[in-house]
Amino acid sequence: MRKGLIQVYTGNGRGKTTAATGQIIRAVGRDFRVMVVYWLKEDNSSGEMSMLKKLGVKTFFWGGIYGKKLAQDKTIQEKQKIQENCAHFLDQVKAEIEKQRYDLLVFDEINIALQCGLMEKEKFFDFLRDKPVSLEIILTGRRAPQDIIDIADLVTEMREIKHPYKQGIKMRKGIDY
Amino acid sequence: MRKGLIQVYTGNGRGKTTAATGQIIRAVGRDFRVMVVYWLKEDNSSGEMSMLKKLGVKTFFWGGIYGKKLAQDKTIQEKQKIQENCAHFLDQVKAEIEKQRYDLLVFDEINIALQCGLMEKEKFFDFLRDKPVSLEIILTGRRAPQDIIDIADLVTEMREIKHPYKQGIKMRKGIDY
Repeated sequence: MRKGLIQVYTGNGRGKTTAATGQIIRAVGRDFRVMVVYWLKEDNSSGEMSMLKKLGVKTFFWGGIYGKKLAQDKTIQEKQKIQENCAHFLDQVKAEIEKQRYDLLVFDEINIALQCGLMEKEKFFDFLRDKPVSLEIILTGRRAPQDIIDIADLVTEMREIKHPYKQGIKMRKGIDY
Repeated sequence: MRKGLIQVYTGNGRGKTTAATGQIIRAVGRDFRVMVVYWLKEDNSSGEMSMLKKLGVKTFFWGGIYGKKLAQDKTIQEKQKIQENCAHFLDQVKAEIEKQRYDLLVFDEINIALQCGLMEKEKFFDFLRDKPVSLEIILTGRRAPQDIIDIADLVTEMREIKHPYKQGIKMRKGIDY
């Protein structure tokens, strides 16, 4: 059986989510079964989401547009509730993986969720440790924690050399989302 | 009218072609018209190619599996012939762009073709200069020439932090191609 690896796309530059999407398309073209979990994005907030669903990729969403704000300005009690919700959601993902054989699983923006403490690291490492052997996993997002990099098999840092935001160009539909 | 930018994905790390593919999928999801030219890859040599065609993306191929070998061990006369062929092909791409309105054009591995001297730089810069204003162009491949980086609006270096080849893991269908 093919051993699934853990891939990480991190760094400040552009191309992390798009690299994961491109990997999904390649895999689908070889009849892989693919699941993608958007940790901090809302359904239909980016052009690729409808395409992936059309191609039979299973999509899940957690946190939505408020995702990135979830970790900010919260009391300890509120934060705990969010962590519990996040952990519960990970259990649902795990149940889905156990139910269906997937070849590739993408966790979009999970690095942010880990960094912000929305996802408890210990819980997440347990998930990775227990993954089906053949399952390839892709983790994206800026500032991947060092212990994630340590356990990964493939890590690319998307390093920003130039970015049009610095020219004052705003987010563009079809390009940036 | 939206101004199309020039994006470059370069560096030794994984994720350049997949980032371009992901960008294509996002654009197609927003009803953009997309063309992709694979400068040094054969048709159907990677899983995403059939998917892109299925989604209505116009695909062109130059050089094929012998592409990367084209610049090696050749006489000056042979090299000149290859350059002419490459230039002629670029004219065909240009004619296609003039015939149809495209929103996004991807030149996969063009940086290599430029570095190897398969594509004459002057010819290529003319092409970029004359591009339709609204056309977004993505250039991929290792070792992007400095003058390409200079004219680009967005440049990401995919920096290799870890790569499974170093563990002795070979190219995997559905993942690497």
